[in-house]
Amino acid sequence: MSTIARRGIHYLQKLNAANIPTALLEKGQNRVIDASLTLIRERAKLKGELVRALGGAKACPSLLGVPLGHNSSFLQGPAFAPPRIREAIWCGSTNSTTEEGKELRDPRVLTDVGDVPVQEIRDCGVDDDRLMNVISESVNLVMEEDPLRPLVLGGDHSISFPVVRAVSEKLGGPIDLLHLDAHPDIYHCFEGNKYSHASSFARIMEGGYARRLLQVGIRSITTEGREQGKRFGVEQYEMRTFSRDRGLLENMGLKGDVVAADVVEFNPQRDTVDGMTAMVAAKLVRELTAKMSK
Amino acid sequence: MSTIARRGIHYLQKLNAANIPTALLEKGQNRVIDASLTLIRERAKLKGELVRALGGAKACPSLLGVPLGHNSSFLQGPAFAPPRIREAIWCGSTNSTTEEGKELRDPRVLTDVGDVPVQEIRDCGVDDDRLMNVISESVNLVMEEDPLRPLVLGGDHSISFPVVRAVSEKLGGPIDLLHLDAHPDIYHCFEGNKYSHASSFARIMEGGYARRLLQVGIRSITTEGREQGKRFGVEQYEMRTFSRDRGLLENMGLKGDVVAADVVEFNPQRDTVDGMTAMVAAKLVRELTAKMSK
Amino acid sequence: MSTIARRGIHYLQKLNAANIPTALLEKGQNRVIDASLTLIRERAKLKGELVRALGGAKACPSLLGVPLGHNSSFLQGPAFAPPRIREAIWCGSTNSTTEEGKELRDPRVLTDVGDVPVQEIRDCGVDDDRLMNVISESVNLVMEEDPLRPLVLGGDHSISFPVVRAVSEKLGGPIDLLHLDAHPDIYHCFEGNKYSHASSFARIMEGGYARRLLQVGIRSITTEGREQGKRFGVEQYEMRTFSRDRGLLENMGLKGDVVAADVVEFNPQRDTVDGMTAMVAAKLVRELTAKMSK
Amino acid sequence: MSTIARRGIHYLQKLNAANIPTALLEKGQNRVIDASLTLIRERAKLKGELVRALGGAKACPSLLGVPLGHNSSFLQGPAFAPPRIREAIWCGSTNSTTEEGKELRDPRVLTDVGDVPVQEIRDCGVDDDRLMNVISESVNLVMEEDPLRPLVLGGDHSISFPVVRAVSEKLGGPIDLLHLDAHPDIYHCFEGNKYSHASSFARIMEGGYARRLLQVGIRSITTEGREQGKRFGVEQYEMRTFSRDRGLLENMGLKGDVVAADVVEFNPQRDTVDGMTAMVAAKLVRELTAKMSK
Amino acid sequence: MSTIARRGIHYLQKLNAANIPTALLEKGQNRVIDASLTLIRERAKLKGELVRALGGAKACPSLLGVPLGHNSSFLQGPAFAPPRIREAIWCGSTNSTTEEGKELRDPRVLTDVGDVPVQEIRDCGVDDDRLMNVISESVNLVMEEDPLRPLVLGGDHSISFPVVRAVSEKLGGPIDLLHLDAHPDIYHCFEGNKYSHASSFARIMEGGYARRLLQVGIRSITTEGREQGKRFGVEQYEMRTFSRDRGLLENMGLKGDVVAADVVEFNPQRDTVDGMTAMVAAKLVRELTAKMSK
Amino acid sequence: MSTIARRGIHYLQKLNAANIPTALLEKGQNRVIDASLTLIRERAKLKGELVRALGGAKACPSLLGVPLGHNSSFLQGPAFAPPRIREAIWCGSTNSTTEEGKELRDPRVLTDVGDVPVQEIRDCGVDDDRLMNVISESVNLVMEEDPLRPLVLGGDHSISFPVVRAVSEKLGGPIDLLHLDAHPDIYHCFEGNKYSHASSFARIMEGGYARRLLQVGIRSITTEGREQGKRFGVEQYEMRTFSRDRGLLENMGLKGDVVAADVVEFNPQRDTVDGMTAMVAAKLVRELTAKMSK
Repeated sequence: MSTIARRGIHYLQKLNAANIPTALLEKGQNRVIDASLTLIRERAKLKGELVRALGGAKACPSLLGVPLGHNSSFLQGPAFAPPRIREAIWCGSTNSTTEEGKELRDPRVLTDVGDVPVQEIRDCGVDDDRLMNVISESVNLVMEEDPLRPLVLGGDHSISFPVVRAVSEKLGGPIDLLHLDAHPDIYHCFEGNKYSHASSFARIMEGGYARRLLQVGIRSITTEGREQGKRFGVEQYEMRTFSRDRGLLENMGLKGDVVAADVVEFNPQRDTVDGMTAMVAAKLVRELTAKMSK
Repeated sequence: MSTIARRGIHYLQKLNAANIPTALLEKGQNRVIDASLTLIRERAKLKGELVRALGGAKACPSLLGVPLGHNSSFLQGPAFAPPRIREAIWCGSTNSTTEEGKELRDPRVLTDVGDVPVQEIRDCGVDDDRLMNVISESVNLVMEEDPLRPLVLGGDHSISFPVVRAVSEKLGGPIDLLHLDAHPDIYHCFEGNKYSHASSFARIMEGGYARRLLQVGIRSITTEGREQGKRFGVEQYEMRTFSRDRGLLENMGLKGDVVAADVVEFNPQRDTVDGMTAMVAAKLVRELTAKMSK
Repeated sequence: MSTIARRGIHYLQKLNAANIPTALLEKGQNRVIDASLTLIRERAKLKGELVRALGGAKACPSLLGVPLGHNSSFLQGPAFAPPRIREAIWCGSTNSTTEEGKELRDPRVLTDVGDVPVQEIRDCGVDDDRLMNVISESVNLVMEEDPLRPLVLGGDHSISFPVVRAVSEKLGGPIDLLHLDAHPDIYHCFEGNKYSHASSFARIMEGGYARRLLQVGIRSITTEGREQGKRFGVEQYEMRTFSRDRGLLENMGLKGDVVAADVVEFNPQRDTVDGMTAMVAAKLVRELTAKMSK
Repeated sequence: MSTIARRGIHYLQKLNAANIPTALLEKGQNRVIDASLTLIRERAKLKGELVRALGGAKACPSLLGVPLGHNSSFLQGPAFAPPRIREAIWCGSTNSTTEEGKELRDPRVLTDVGDVPVQEIRDCGVDDDRLMNVISESVNLVMEEDPLRPLVLGGDHSISFPVVRAVSEKLGGPIDLLHLDAHPDIYHCFEGNKYSHASSFARIMEGGYARRLLQVGIRSITTEGREQGKRFGVEQYEMRTFSRDRGLLENMGLKGDVVAADVVEFNPQRDTVDGMTAMVAAKLVRELTAKMSK
Repeated sequence: MSTIARRGIHYLQKLNAANIPTALLEKGQNRVIDASLTLIRERAKLKGELVRALGGAKACPSLLGVPLGHNSSFLQGPAFAPPRIREAIWCGSTNSTTEEGKELRDPRVLTDVGDVPVQEIRDCGVDDDRLMNVISESVNLVMEEDPLRPLVLGGDHSISFPVVRAVSEKLGGPIDLLHLDAHPDIYHCFEGNKYSHASSFARIMEGGYARRLLQVGIRSITTEGREQGKRFGVEQYEMRTFSRDRGLLENMGLKGDVVAADVVEFNPQRDTVDGMTAMVAAKLVRELTAKMSK
Repeated sequence: MSTIARRGIHYLQKLNAANIPTALLEKGQNRVIDASLTLIRERAKLKGELVRALGGAKACPSLLGVPLGHNSSFLQGPAFAPPRIREAIWCGSTNSTTEEGKELRDPRVLTDVGDVPVQEIRDCGVDDDRLMNVISESVNLVMEEDPLRPLVLGGDHSISFPVVRAVSEKLGGPIDLLHLDAHPDIYHCFEGNKYSHASSFARIMEGGYARRLLQVGIRSITTEGREQGKRFGVEQYEMRTFSRDRGLLENMGLKGDVVAADVVEFNPQRDTVDGMTAMVAAKLVRELTAKMSK
């Protein structure tokens, strides 16, 4: 996947150099992006209509897959994650009820608007700035269709930036973020890539999209990670003091209204043979659904 | 994936029963299908423009993924195949040259129009008849964009029916087919499913889409398989007489102009840990590219 | 295994339809069942004699394998479990002592009466009612041979019904049950199968075989699961309140005399390559042995 | 499995030393062996009756599993093979027809008498001499039930000795043997074990059970292997001269009437994750069935 | 690996019997051992010089691999562990910072003197007594080069004996030992091998190398294990009383100055496909580095 | 492994910049290299003495491991290969005889001088030019010890250059080379690395070390590959014309005296779970031993 992506960029840059009319390329890219967003919009619209026709809901989480893996610094399998997570959610070995008893098969509890066609867009030579815009716009399209709320399936952690940006812009101001991770992903830039999965929270904080950022579970943090944390006023809770901080955290945390969520960095190519990690990802999605749906 | 598909059908049937206005559902499905085909069309158009801008080609194979697995009777992993095959084609452990020396990175030799959004369409409750039409129409959209020629990545064998139908209709008459398989896939119907992966060639022959059908490599054939073969005038070459038939087969076979191809039934969930079968599928795609591109 | 089972039923039903004398079939089935039970009886008898000849014990857990997987709704590998668990119990990478220091190699601490020949019985067309009776009778044969006590190796969860029934009937009244599971397995019927692994506790409660049923560890329970729980007076402890309930549970729980136990639903085909789950199942058997043996 | 076996022997020897009455032990062992053989007999009888009631056959191969792994010098997984091979034979990913078109689901073409309860017998302290007799007697019981013919599923190669002995004794004289293997398995004794899987053909030749022994496919043969071959007049065809010998071998080989067969040394614990070797073993069983059934 | 080792011993014993001059063999072995130790010495010396040239440190942990697996009673893969642990330490999917923020890429924090060439030495017929001396001498060579401190990568647990002996002798008296393990490894002798991985702490205690031995985490202990524990005054804390003992243990334990450590018994051949256990071993090494470096 | 290597280079370059005395570093590196070569020399010497003491041989292949993986462009696992190949050679599941009957356990047929300590040398900051010299010198040390002949276990294909160079220089002129591979590995330079595994034969031909180079089995060759082939007069036989060329090749090929060999590019991290590729590598080593030993 990553190879395709790099290749896409590579030969299109060569095309430009070879005097391919820029206008031809840009027009084509725009048409492909427009068609991609139209597909998301129509799916969100149909799903919204169905939910409402069934009696409606106050909030209905809606899956949106973002199969993007090329901004990882390591293995790039997260691009393969969305269909595997869906398979694990509906897999016969578990039932379709959340721990609190909500029935996932009820479209008012959970719906699905499919995947952003990331690979198709990148392979046309679209650059990362515009790709990030497409992701933000896709999240926005879901939120436009009341009562759908985005439950995004990554992809790597780089997608959190456009997801959070879209949510913040839609809601009209900075939002509160809970970030569960072993790493703070707040490098200014990683391996020369400002959209790296290790830099997403730097972009979010710079953009003013977060009123408050809680990072819980940190196990591996460098000096830069701590300094960036201080610079942006991030509340970083490390795993080694977790038993001390637990009470504090349980008093904030998931008490508010969860308007959007993403589950990222699941790499099916590093999973066990029987897909244990896919089951964990699906469990997260189920319980986030329980939390978000109303 | 299959579970999702079945669920889609299931709750939509319940929706109908619950007096959801049929018109609402059908309109939404039509809009989703239209948006899906528009995405394929725009991608094919851009890729065609690029090939022509680079000097053109007489024939340029173009990958089209059809991630459809729900018509398999066994495991349904073929829906996961297209991205894995692409990954194996471009993977760093092989080079990008065919055995005869063609350079796959040259867009005039191989291009890619992405995947038909099968899961997204089915999840809206679209039935199999219309899904098969979407696949045929997608293949047609590739062929409309001269000099692109479809090199379809399945999915299970059920997709061969809509692929062959589209090619035959576009060319204006029955075509010659070479089918390499251990099974003839020519049951009239399998487990009650006329679009089963075990019935695709029955549909092709009934539809009059094939002038001649050669099935090579058959190892496992039932009485019905043989009778259907006779009924439709299929030329069935079994593996146990392969050494006798080899000379005969080498004199026909791939001597003609290959206008389209599909590689189907690769199931990543049954692959070895290091993806040996993905590499075989990618090798087939490479050498089919060598044969088809001009 | 499941395929064999289904096939067995399938062709014998056809045989009946084809006017195969029912008497012939039933007589043969009875002879096979009798021979199977005789084998269990003789093995239990020899093991009982050995334990007594070695000085006896008050209670000696005795392994009894029930390789039954066809009542699972998902994957059916639990039929392969008993030999894998035995292998893991005696495997060289652990020693043969329980945590409290009992020596498993002493036949007074643990003995083994082998497997019920489930596949052989089913393949003769024996139906599920009679198969369940064979399992109950096998458990009974172990208990007949004082001081042996059944430590049953499943198989899927459907076997808990005939196991509990046999113990209750042998002891002359309802017994107290501790059930550790993420699911309550108390559906009235699952996918049309009253002996499903998801219905075993409905059968147990209906039959009046349990005085008290504690279900601990529930993570995934549907509305029907809760309603059936109430209907039968089941004490259901969910995982999400486990830290609260822990103290309470430690005060009852395994304080009584454990007269029988089963370890079920281990599926070797979903295990890790190095058999981590088999080791967990073996650990459970070891420590149950420590608890049961006297 | 092997550990269980060794343990069984170990503690029973200690029991003897501890003045456990030998008569008690021997009587119990005899009762277990009798019950085991009765189970085989009853199953063979019922299967024979069914075949005859369905119109009969001239020869009907009948599966007999011998899950014996403790005579292997290397890994002992072959004891787990019989259920895996059955699963692969009936597995949904292939159909149930042989290459020549025989339908395996027809009980006149293939039937099954289940497994010899090897582990249960050994765990009672029965020694190898008597275990080998039990296997021979089991094979004999199948042949007693006309028209059943034994198609034995090992287990390791040590079982070929009792299988061939039974067939030869039943037919009243030495038989012709075709042995496909990379090793000749003809050591006089291997690691001190005369029943080793590397010594089975030494036992067969010494016993006078073979009129002619063809060993085809030899790739790894020691000086002792060649000398034993000469001593017993074995016809050894090595892989490195296979292309030269092929014509010769095709003129004898499987031309005769195949009265019995075994498929041995399949080790599920060394199989690929998706059971490729199990599929090969099942394929052998299918085509042997085609050859043997009449 | 183990096979090689056993073979080495085997044919050299035969060589002696065949009147190979003992002097020739011993001289050669001595030269090989001398060259091996020279290689360790030169590497330690260079690494010490670099650390000092960079400004020095009070204590700098230095990896020393001891790829020894032949003293395990079970599988012998620990001989393959050192390169896998190194790979996991530096692997791109984690960063190179410890939880407390020390940078592992700084040579003053962590350095590496490579592996003792165990296989090369054993294959020359060197016996276990002398091999254990080579290991002790290698550990000593690291400690000679101030400020390097040995962080040894096993290998199986048998190497703890020569490691502890070297540290104790270097420091001039018995040391305090913390041993985290499920087994006490304190058999007088195991399967006839006094250097077995199950006997290392018997050797350590007999030699008077430990002032105090805390064994924490014991889950599987035999009567001999407890008796040896008493005999040597070992403080054994079992897992089943861990919650009770935790407070006590946190008050001693790792409060002192850690002068040396080993991480043993990691067997790559039993790891999951994605190397989860290697990552755990690497995590231990990272945090031990944090603790040891000053 | 590769990460270690890169790290080594990285921090040593930084050390130089930080005014670490170059003399200090170079002296240390020289001492480490000298000690490494001394270890190889002593092992070769001892093995040569043993062979001669046992009666000698005309030619005795001697294993020499070169665990070098950092010059691969793809995955770098070949550095882990030498111990796995040794394990597979001596593994209990095969016997120790070649197809022609030579006994590998006889030290006059096969001996082993162990591994070049590649990782230890690189981690001291030694550059690739000097590392290649160390490998050549190690091969030379084996050949110095008559009758030992090098049978090198890679490592990736980059090691063929220093191996061939050493053999040619020892023999006093260009040698004939048979190269079995799917790729020609004759790029002038690959990804900026002149010692890449894809460039080894360019280095060999430039150096004048080969009189004749036959490349057999080529399946994937680029335009540069063909042009370099022509430039250096390489005889390239492609797989697609193999059936035509076979007769020709069988008449030259391995008819001469094989003075040295290497087996490279085996990557244990891409092997099947049961090590099928390791077994293939070991089989090659066995039969090369049969061919080389005299």
